[in-house]
Amino acid sequence: MKKTIYEILQEAAPGNRVSQIFDIFLISLISLNVVVLVVGTVGEIHQVSPEAFQIFEIVSVAIFTVEYLLRIWSCTSNPRYRHPVLGRLSFAALPVVFVDLLAILPFYLAVIGGFQGADLRFLRVIRLLARIARLSRYSSGMRTLARVIHAKGNELLTVIVVLLVLLLMASSAMFFAENEAQPDKFSNIPQAMWWSVITLTTVGYGDVFPVTILGRLLAGLIAILGIGMFALPAGILGSGFVEEIRNRTDMPKVCPHCGKDILHSTSSEQG
Amino acid sequence: MKKTIYEILQEAAPGNRVSQIFDIFLISLISLNVVVLVVGTVGEIHQVSPEAFQIFEIVSVAIFTVEYLLRIWSCTSNPRYRHPVLGRLSFAALPVVFVDLLAILPFYLAVIGGFQGADLRFLRVIRLLARIARLSRYSSGMRTLARVIHAKGNELLTVIVVLLVLLLMASSAMFFAENEAQPDKFSNIPQAMWWSVITLTTVGYGDVFPVTILGRLLAGLIAILGIGMFALPAGILGSGFVEEIRNRTDMPKVCPHCGKDILHSTSSEQG
Amino acid sequence: MKKTIYEILQEAAPGNRVSQIFDIFLISLISLNVVVLVVGTVGEIHQVSPEAFQIFEIVSVAIFTVEYLLRIWSCTSNPRYRHPVLGRLSFAALPVVFVDLLAILPFYLAVIGGFQGADLRFLRVIRLLARIARLSRYSSGMRTLARVIHAKGNELLTVIVVLLVLLLMASSAMFFAENEAQPDKFSNIPQAMWWSVITLTTVGYGDVFPVTILGRLLAGLIAILGIGMFALPAGILGSGFVEEIRNRTDMPKVCPHCGKDILHSTSSEQG
Amino acid sequence: MKKTIYEILQEAAPGNRVSQIFDIFLISLISLNVVVLVVGTVGEIHQVSPEAFQIFEIVSVAIFTVEYLLRIWSCTSNPRYRHPVLGRLSFAALPVVFVDLLAILPFYLAVIGGFQGADLRFLRVIRLLARIARLSRYSSGMRTLARVIHAKGNELLTVIVVLLVLLLMASSAMFFAENEAQPDKFSNIPQAMWWSVITLTTVGYGDVFPVTILGRLLAGLIAILGIGMFALPAGILGSGFVEEIRNRTDMPKVCPHCGKDILHSTSSEQG
Repeated sequence: MKKTIYEILQEAAPGNRVSQIFDIFLISLISLNVVVLVVGTVGEIHQVSPEAFQIFEIVSVAIFTVEYLLRIWSCTSNPRYRHPVLGRLSFAALPVVFVDLLAILPFYLAVIGGFQGADLRFLRVIRLLARIARLSRYSSGMRTLARVIHAKGNELLTVIVVLLVLLLMASSAMFFAENEAQPDKFSNIPQAMWWSVITLTTVGYGDVFPVTILGRLLAGLIAILGIGMFALPAGILGSGFVEEIRNRTDMPKVCPHCGKDILHSTSSEQG
Repeated sequence: MKKTIYEILQEAAPGNRVSQIFDIFLISLISLNVVVLVVGTVGEIHQVSPEAFQIFEIVSVAIFTVEYLLRIWSCTSNPRYRHPVLGRLSFAALPVVFVDLLAILPFYLAVIGGFQGADLRFLRVIRLLARIARLSRYSSGMRTLARVIHAKGNELLTVIVVLLVLLLMASSAMFFAENEAQPDKFSNIPQAMWWSVITLTTVGYGDVFPVTILGRLLAGLIAILGIGMFALPAGILGSGFVEEIRNRTDMPKVCPHCGKDILHSTSSEQG
Repeated sequence: MKKTIYEILQEAAPGNRVSQIFDIFLISLISLNVVVLVVGTVGEIHQVSPEAFQIFEIVSVAIFTVEYLLRIWSCTSNPRYRHPVLGRLSFAALPVVFVDLLAILPFYLAVIGGFQGADLRFLRVIRLLARIARLSRYSSGMRTLARVIHAKGNELLTVIVVLLVLLLMASSAMFFAENEAQPDKFSNIPQAMWWSVITLTTVGYGDVFPVTILGRLLAGLIAILGIGMFALPAGILGSGFVEEIRNRTDMPKVCPHCGKDILHSTSSEQG
Repeated sequence: MKKTIYEILQEAAPGNRVSQIFDIFLISLISLNVVVLVVGTVGEIHQVSPEAFQIFEIVSVAIFTVEYLLRIWSCTSNPRYRHPVLGRLSFAALPVVFVDLLAILPFYLAVIGGFQGADLRFLRVIRLLARIARLSRYSSGMRTLARVIHAKGNELLTVIVVLLVLLLMASSAMFFAENEAQPDKFSNIPQAMWWSVITLTTVGYGDVFPVTILGRLLAGLIAILGIGMFALPAGILGSGFVEEIRNRTDMPKVCPHCGKDILHSTSSEQG
């Protein structure tokens, strides 16, 4: 019976009707929860009935808690996590399972009490992000994105290190050029980094910009050359994503000499 | 005779002179109509002679109505829509035909009366968009765009779902970071979504932006990583469009020397 | 002797020393002229000595005029333009020659007098643009750009027509959504087009943006989908440019079957 | 012994334990130094203890000076720089070595004294940029970027020349269109160039933008066509960078079945 519950809780394999029904129920509940939390931040809507929001939250947390405990209890039916303590711990440490915990923990921590202001806000954002993340498990697009980040991890890291160095150099130069003319906007290098990021990503709010001739010359140069490097993470993630979702419909790759599949080979063929 | 009228109303096949003349007349009338409606929104121009604008609209609607009724009447000459009622209904439900109805319906609904303010504005925008859409039928570029959207529909949908999730996560994080410092600009998560869209598309108006250190750190991170994903619909539509219009003028697919297909080769050629 | 002068005036063929010296002299004079005209717009610099600027202009125009007349006079030595009247007229109608005329004509028209305000400013901008264009003839990069615009002309036109239609549709929708809330910023559809262009190119100055919920929803949608199409002329020109400057260093393209060059073939090979 | 010191100072070859320890020590010291210099610009942090910052700088410069002198002294053990004077001079002229000098020279120049205001700020920015550059030597990403700039140098130069010409033309046109309406924002062509750069890179701060109808029409046209060209340096650097870091992990270049090179084939294989 433990095994049955485990399989129901996991994503439905095609054919397992109960598991599919459970999945649909869970997706609906989490979606509704996210929507409620999001529109609950709108003052006028929340004031209509704060109690309704509270009750909805308590009910949701109750259901999520029961589901989480059932998951932890039934995971030992999976041979990989069969140890009653260590198996359960390594199962609970899986990202997808840990996120389920993050979705309900803030509620209990807030109930235990003593959290104020910024800490309370932090708990609430963790709760919301965790629930959005739970939904993501069911979206093929989000799973693809996770795969892309994992696959291109090294490239991304190399690029981001270069970006940080360029950011530092651009911010330093612009700080020294503009500090005297705009001591409030370019008062120190960390503050100049805000200008750099917003400009090199071409967002360009316009809250901060150079006014001296030297500053403007530097800005123009930095923009023309630097925007390319700052577009790299975008390009790596974006094109990697499109590659992944197109990989299902690619043409077979065959060797133009012997006509066999490049991507696969049997042991007998390798000399 | 019904068949003749039907063929005249449809886009002209090469050679059918009457149909071509009709097409040119219709394109001119719709274009003129769109221009008149657009410049008619300029107060000073409209005040020159509101009656002239009215008369032009009435005449246009009259011609469009006659054309529409003729289309519906004559469509039964096409074997696919030969049933007097069902055939006409399925013909009228075709997108290109339905848009013709949307171009004249607002006029009659407004005449029937009782529409005020926002409803009247809605009718007017439907009327204008429908007439611009009618023009699009004659532009090869717009037909290509429609084909691209149809072809890449699945990819686009997957990407847009991922965008919405990322938008939600970015907005939630930025809301919790900035709400205290800027309760008017980041008063709730839906409002924070406005900041997210405008920043992640790099438009960056500058009407809203983070001022706290945490908010700015988050914004920088979100910008550098997220801009790539938000550029995806752009890339998918844009490159798909260019692919389509280049498919007609590609490099020769046959080798000019041996006459065989460059992209494919048969087994006998491979040693 | 006429033929000698013609060859000197034309761009130098490798080896023709006099022609090369003349080219260098002319490039220097035009560059200096452009720099003088550009910095001459700076009030403080111009006031140092308005007479010096005047004299420099008169001398430059004198030299350019003599050069132009010599060109027109000597062009008949080229067999293509040998007719004393028609040959000279078709030579003068060539873009590169016409630009030379545009560089000096404003001076004479201004001298003839009677031009005020906006007309005078128009003459002055034509003069400046024409002289910058004259310089462009000697830059391989600018010649490449001209080649790209010529080669991709059809693609560009199709794309620009689609852009105009999308611009019109986006502006109409946004006008009807925002006109009531911001009658000064969205007072008519042409004015809404300014918002559309600045947003869809992601420049996003921030002088105009939607404030209503419907307007913001529309803006987000328009931005996410429309930015792709507006990036197309950029992509077509940009990638075409890079293709052209790389075409000189490309690998030979050979047919994988028979090993001969794909791009060229002798008549005997075509069956 | 000189040779041993030389090898320790150079980047560590795999296996040379002392050299690796030295490298790690040096990277840590320079990183710490950069962090200290950057956060030292924040007024509140600097005021905590200006003496601490001074002492840290003096100690760092002392260590860097000793290291630099050791490098110059020991470089003659490398056969390429064996001449006591000329060898040391050409070694000191290498970019990577010159940067080490730039990192400590500002300190000594400032001590010698007599530098005020802008000059002092210039020395300080050189010192900071040089130290960030020293760090870059150890980052594979930055070395890759340097390789890309070197490889694509010609392309970049051609493109940048074209950009300057387009910048000049756009600025001139916009100056003449907007000068009368906004004499403060578009007071001369160099000032109009600021508008051009910020708009064509799509940063779009919003501090300057056209308000006349002609100016806005020009701006729209310039934006749609010009943004492509301004994205070119970005594309060249960005794609070149990604090419370089992927060159190490490419798909197999040999067919796993027949062991021959996929990209090339010999004539005997082609039937």
